[in-house]
Amino acid sequence: MNNEDIIIAEATPPGAAAISVIRLSGTNCIEAADRLFSGKVKLSAVPSHTLHYGRIVGRNAQTIDDVLASVFREPNSYTGEDSVEISTHGNPLVTATVINEFLQMDIRIAEPGEFTKRAFLNGRIDLAQAEAVIELINSRSEAAVRGSRNQLDGLLSQKIGELRQQLINAVSLVELELDFAEEDLEFIDNSAVIELITGIKKEISALLATYRFGRVFREGVNVALVGLPNVGKSSVLNHILKERRAIVSPIPGTTRDIIREDVTIDGVLYRLYDTAGIRNTEDLIEKEGVERSRKAVRDADLVLFINETAHPFDEYLYLELQEFTSEERIVKVINKSDLPGKVGDQPGSIRVSALTGEGFEQLFDLMKERAYGGENYTEKSILVSSIRHKSLLEKANIALENAKDSAKQQMSGEFISVDIRHAINSLGEIIGTVTTDDILNNIFSKFCIGK
Amino acid sequence: MNNEDIIIAEATPPGAAAISVIRLSGTNCIEAADRLFSGKVKLSAVPSHTLHYGRIVGRNAQTIDDVLASVFREPNSYTGEDSVEISTHGNPLVTATVINEFLQMDIRIAEPGEFTKRAFLNGRIDLAQAEAVIELINSRSEAAVRGSRNQLDGLLSQKIGELRQQLINAVSLVELELDFAEEDLEFIDNSAVIELITGIKKEISALLATYRFGRVFREGVNVALVGLPNVGKSSVLNHILKERRAIVSPIPGTTRDIIREDVTIDGVLYRLYDTAGIRNTEDLIEKEGVERSRKAVRDADLVLFINETAHPFDEYLYLELQEFTSEERIVKVINKSDLPGKVGDQPGSIRVSALTGEGFEQLFDLMKERAYGGENYTEKSILVSSIRHKSLLEKANIALENAKDSAKQQMSGEFISVDIRHAINSLGEIIGTVTTDDILNNIFSKFCIGK
Repeated sequence: MNNEDIIIAEATPPGAAAISVIRLSGTNCIEAADRLFSGKVKLSAVPSHTLHYGRIVGRNAQTIDDVLASVFREPNSYTGEDSVEISTHGNPLVTATVINEFLQMDIRIAEPGEFTKRAFLNGRIDLAQAEAVIELINSRSEAAVRGSRNQLDGLLSQKIGELRQQLINAVSLVELELDFAEEDLEFIDNSAVIELITGIKKEISALLATYRFGRVFREGVNVALVGLPNVGKSSVLNHILKERRAIVSPIPGTTRDIIREDVTIDGVLYRLYDTAGIRNTEDLIEKEGVERSRKAVRDADLVLFINETAHPFDEYLYLELQEFTSEERIVKVINKSDLPGKVGDQPGSIRVSALTGEGFEQLFDLMKERAYGGENYTEKSILVSSIRHKSLLEKANIALENAKDSAKQQMSGEFISVDIRHAINSLGEIIGTVTTDDILNNIFSKFCIGK
Repeated sequence: MNNEDIIIAEATPPGAAAISVIRLSGTNCIEAADRLFSGKVKLSAVPSHTLHYGRIVGRNAQTIDDVLASVFREPNSYTGEDSVEISTHGNPLVTATVINEFLQMDIRIAEPGEFTKRAFLNGRIDLAQAEAVIELINSRSEAAVRGSRNQLDGLLSQKIGELRQQLINAVSLVELELDFAEEDLEFIDNSAVIELITGIKKEISALLATYRFGRVFREGVNVALVGLPNVGKSSVLNHILKERRAIVSPIPGTTRDIIREDVTIDGVLYRLYDTAGIRNTEDLIEKEGVERSRKAVRDADLVLFINETAHPFDEYLYLELQEFTSEERIVKVINKSDLPGKVGDQPGSIRVSALTGEGFEQLFDLMKERAYGGENYTEKSILVSSIRHKSLLEKANIALENAKDSAKQQMSGEFISVDIRHAINSLGEIIGTVTTDDILNNIFSKFCIGK
């Protein structure tokens, strides 16, 4: 495509560390790197996939850093173009200086996701795989990593490709018949078309059925903790954290409106929001807290409503809670199960003790069950986790339903064919066989620069 | 040394990005990498300095990520040992999972600075160069980068090595004479010893003289802005920021007690602290602010005391200020030079206008002058910027002074020799020819893990 253009960007996170990596891609980028790289060899003279020690020497003949340069020759690079990766000391000033030297040449800063976009445009990966790259980078749980890994490995793409190919075969026969309409030849009979479409619709529906847990696996589950302070809400939170705290890492741009803690249960991310209170108040500062708590409850996939054995179940707060969420999202938790109580029976409640740890495994099981039906999936499961893919699959299903109707009504092949072609296009959009600039820009603008 | 041990660490900053790099070093680490790496080739079969695409497959035969593995064979690696660098997708969960898989083998997390320590122990770099690595990574200004770059290039080491060698030659002659004392042979006469020592002392003193700006170049200059709000303190600050704002990057662990902004002037970092007020107050919240402002003034290398043309110079505040800093650190700035004023003449003051920009170049020149005498140094200048090096050079100088005294007093060669040997050892400690575990631990514990 436009790989005349050389692009550059830092490929590692900013910050002080042992090394940072700067990436260049585009025709003649190896020659461009040679203009600043000073080593035993010219990079333009070395084979692909080799590493070379040298110095980046800027204008005024000043050494900026000593580096390792990796050379990749097209088509065997991430982008499919000639590429160079330069490993510098991990200092943002050093990388900025090196990049700035390159920008003096006919080289520009890459747009977000442009390296991956080029990989797609050069046929190294398809569109669903390209989308999986950004999902993989941003995954915050093992389930999310695994899901995007599968998608990057092409499991979804392969499935979509197969379904699409079957439809292409069918539509060619339907259209062939149209070409020979005068001769009244039959290449495929209507019942075969109907059967084929029914089969494919079933497979698409099966894919769509994975979306519920695909989304949960990808995005995690928002959980709000609600309860009066004396019920031991924080000790419940702390016990969950002690058991399952997630690997925390700095995520630029994370907005935190109220205190949030992440845990993973069976690889799935749960974001726990410790709410302050949801009751109306006149106090201005508290009012702000109440507003945030209510928002957390509204946004929650699950609400842990925490009571304790020593007090009667808080029916009044339970009713109030239902103003902001639906009953089926609420998990009733009775804390302090180690103490004798007067709470009385609460159907569907889980008794736990933050002191002894009793009941938490059952609580985790219930949370899994409520979040995604507790279903497990194997490493080879294909999951639909992107809203884009979901809506394209739904469009394909509708088009196929129409084609099927036309076939049933013995309508002319043209009517059948046009709807099957719609379905083929929708499936093609998922893997990028059919695409537009708008679709691409929308997808790749979500990437970070450098990928 | 102990390169039987395989060490592992993430070499890039944590965070979501295109790639992260994990580093392994130690005998047989390439074979260890092969146990998880699955590609077209075995890494243990490939030449040094080559890159290979493959997958990291964990226990349960599950693919963790697709990666690029770089192979370095001893002695041609950073550490001087066999090393592998694994480039994964930039996700902290992915790197943690990969590292965790390696930790199941006989591999451990590297100590801070351990890769560089091994480079030193394996003779790849000397100690002053190893120290320059951490300085380079942590440099926050161009001057600091350049200074540590020079030290990493061995300019200081070479100088120290030369001086040390001259002393070794001298001391051998002195000691040779002692061996042949009975024969009364003279290999070097006292005046020659005195001359040599005098020359070396002069060179050491010249190195020590660079410490003042070496430190400033390395660590930057703390500047406190003081002045009543109506004098346009924030507009002065904003104008300086507009002109010279430094490249800002996230530095983990930076503590900010009051608002701080960084600027670079001629490559040198100035940290500007915008103080609230230094006057006693009864208000409890203000009290806290006053305490912090006073601390900022006490810690400042320079205080910009800001007045304005429209009001008389604030002599009273000027006196108060001197309770917390010395007069020579205070730069008197008169803002709003574009307006007619009644401020009167203030000797040594600089008139500026945050509105028109007038006077700021002179202010910057004065800041440079006050901070480090405004001296410039070329790319090849040798700077002493580390307190460790400074104190060892001082120790060497004292020892040489003693040796010179002994020589002048015609004392026995033993007295001369013992002091020259002290000086040789002090110089040796700088470059690591002479060292102890304590010295090494102290130096390398300041590194980040992964370097």
